[in-house]
Amino acid sequence: MRMYDIITKKREGEKLSREEIAFFIKGFTSGEIPDYQAAALLMAICIRGMTDEETVALTEEMATSGDTVDLSCLKNTVDKHSTGGVGDKVSLVVAPLVASLGATVAKMSGRGLGHTGGTIDKLESIPGFKTEISSDEFFEIAKKHGVVIVGQSGNLDPADKKLYALRDVTATVPAMPLIASSIMSKKLAAGAHSIVLDVTVGSGSFMPEFDMARELAEKMVKIGKAAGRNIAAVITDMDAPLGVCVGNSLEVGEAVEILKGKGTQDLRQVCVTIGAEMLSLALGEEISVCREKCERALDDGTAYDRFKKMVAAQGGDTSFIDDASKFPRAKNIISVYAESDGFIYHMNTSKIGEISVVAGAGREKKGDKIDFSAGIEVLKKTGDSVKKGDVIARIHTNKTGIDGVLTSEYLSAVELSDKAPQKRPHIWEIVR
Amino acid sequence: MRMYDIITKKREGEKLSREEIAFFIKGFTSGEIPDYQAAALLMAICIRGMTDEETVALTEEMATSGDTVDLSCLKNTVDKHSTGGVGDKVSLVVAPLVASLGATVAKMSGRGLGHTGGTIDKLESIPGFKTEISSDEFFEIAKKHGVVIVGQSGNLDPADKKLYALRDVTATVPAMPLIASSIMSKKLAAGAHSIVLDVTVGSGSFMPEFDMARELAEKMVKIGKAAGRNIAAVITDMDAPLGVCVGNSLEVGEAVEILKGKGTQDLRQVCVTIGAEMLSLALGEEISVCREKCERALDDGTAYDRFKKMVAAQGGDTSFIDDASKFPRAKNIISVYAESDGFIYHMNTSKIGEISVVAGAGREKKGDKIDFSAGIEVLKKTGDSVKKGDVIARIHTNKTGIDGVLTSEYLSAVELSDKAPQKRPHIWEIVR
Repeated sequence: MRMYDIITKKREGEKLSREEIAFFIKGFTSGEIPDYQAAALLMAICIRGMTDEETVALTEEMATSGDTVDLSCLKNTVDKHSTGGVGDKVSLVVAPLVASLGATVAKMSGRGLGHTGGTIDKLESIPGFKTEISSDEFFEIAKKHGVVIVGQSGNLDPADKKLYALRDVTATVPAMPLIASSIMSKKLAAGAHSIVLDVTVGSGSFMPEFDMARELAEKMVKIGKAAGRNIAAVITDMDAPLGVCVGNSLEVGEAVEILKGKGTQDLRQVCVTIGAEMLSLALGEEISVCREKCERALDDGTAYDRFKKMVAAQGGDTSFIDDASKFPRAKNIISVYAESDGFIYHMNTSKIGEISVVAGAGREKKGDKIDFSAGIEVLKKTGDSVKKGDVIARIHTNKTGIDGVLTSEYLSAVELSDKAPQKRPHIWEIVR
Repeated sequence: MRMYDIITKKREGEKLSREEIAFFIKGFTSGEIPDYQAAALLMAICIRGMTDEETVALTEEMATSGDTVDLSCLKNTVDKHSTGGVGDKVSLVVAPLVASLGATVAKMSGRGLGHTGGTIDKLESIPGFKTEISSDEFFEIAKKHGVVIVGQSGNLDPADKKLYALRDVTATVPAMPLIASSIMSKKLAAGAHSIVLDVTVGSGSFMPEFDMARELAEKMVKIGKAAGRNIAAVITDMDAPLGVCVGNSLEVGEAVEILKGKGTQDLRQVCVTIGAEMLSLALGEEISVCREKCERALDDGTAYDRFKKMVAAQGGDTSFIDDASKFPRAKNIISVYAESDGFIYHMNTSKIGEISVVAGAGREKKGDKIDFSAGIEVLKKTGDSVKKGDVIARIHTNKTGIDGVLTSEYLSAVELSDKAPQKRPHIWEIVR
């Protein structure tokens, strides 16, 4: 078998066999197949596409390109993944929520990069919280509390790491089979039997259009099923930041509110919908039953209690959970005022995410240090009416001398209009 | 300007601007743009194509990527290029032919690689013939005799060298804009004011189908005109070896026959047609007049005399031209016999070229040493009737112990049939 012939086949729009895809992934991961040949194949895939069968093969070969996690000693394992958003603290809520109802969430999460935050950074804003623990501890906590969240470790899915780095510099990122296989291969390698995907759509997502988000959701659900997993995808709105807060400790505080049965309706609705899907897949129970259980567990403190147990088990100081006002506050809190009367017609949500990065809450490149207290309180969102002079946001930062820049950037990310915008759903569709 | 954006544009099927193409060629030639980005762009070009305007820009940017030859001190300069064939000794004939009639052929030619031979190797089979001479000598001979042929030297079209090497390993060779720009950029850099292309079609060519050959011919003629050159393309048949001989000194001997007004009709017809096109473009004379002049110059010894002058001027021993039997003969001359009665229905001409390489006449890879005396006399060709036991070919080689292999390979390259094949023209079409 020769890489040259594999590239030729895909260039001509032909279907690759499982063996050819395996040859490519093995050779590319080991370094035997050079970047320039991989780049040519990736471009051919971008333009010619891949069948579902090819995409499944690609995903499975990537998933087994390195270490895989064996969760078979745990019961009712379920994982959750979001395609990315701004103010997305859903994992912090749903993981303890469904654990408190009988599922096991023993998962790896990522760090933030660019405009989207990462669950691991958020958890690390809790003093003492350890996201690097031994495998023994990981399984012990999972068995005892049903929930444990750690950073990615080991040589998991090295094919994806190499492929992603190459796609990023060869303009071969936006290809449905490549996006779907990149996400799903990591989920398959991570070992959970059930998987719920949160596919975001809107200005804060990398899928601005619903049709594309649905296509991706459907492709990933097909891959998951073909690989023998229980899977569902919830298409959620990310045309405005989710909830109120953007930034690490601010988001932990907001997640705690939801876990206490309080918080904003948009965030609660997304958490309950995703939580119910996770529970239903993990336990095999009716979705309506699972929904009710989730609502109740948020309202009666069960979920909140489980979150504290997880924080304690992973070394975190739970007094910060009991009283979020203990989190250090940024020294400089900048109020952003509406410049005229009207409705918030649209928010450039990616840009709001980028402003939070500038404030210190995120990373422009891998390895950058994060300021856990930095972030944004988004007080007025799309559809809200505002009066000139109303505070529409508060930007938290420890940086000084950039108040003007942060304010004008925020204002330029928020479009005001005389007329109210069309209302968008929080949940667009569920693909099962 | 970023390479990433250029790749993205072509991936989406958009047209690249002259500035973007120049950015790519400059950056790739200098090494600033890495192979993997170039590979992604090449694949996008392969699948999405290029407009004529883009192809012209690509060709011109490649042509000026390194040194260019200035032939402006010479009059009526005309160059000739073949897309490759087996037994193709046309340049040896037409260069002195048109020089003897007032045109100037001051050209660089290539060496053979794979199944196609190269003019430089053929000339070097003449004892003493120098294909590396100083620039002063080059212009002196061109001015004095109107004809000089040397090997490629200097840093001519480095973009093409790098691009071709990359295309060769990334399955991005067969793309019309890339093929056309590769050939034409070298011709533009080589400086002649008029250019005649010999576009071969058939089993010995890399264009097996006439439609593709015509598309390529038309594209190259458009490029040449856009670059301000006089240009024509003659589409010639290469479904059987051209003439009788394949191999370096054997082909020189055959070219001399044609230059003496003898030789086979297929070869003479191709030489007269291409020679007339060259002369017509170079002198601006009617094609029918040029044809007559060429016929006469072959028949009355004018062309032959000019060939000898060129050989002498470049240091070659003209006694080998006067008496081709002086060329050393290979020690082992293998007769190949027809295995049954019938017609030669088809010849796998590339394979016959490869057999000549195995016999020693060519190179499998760059730098391989050539045996000038090795080659094949193709005594029976497509359409000829044969009787069992007839000698259909004689393979000349200095190798021993491979007679059986050479014979059986040759027989497998020649298809016999009860019925005669459809006749193919020697000249398919002329694109002006």
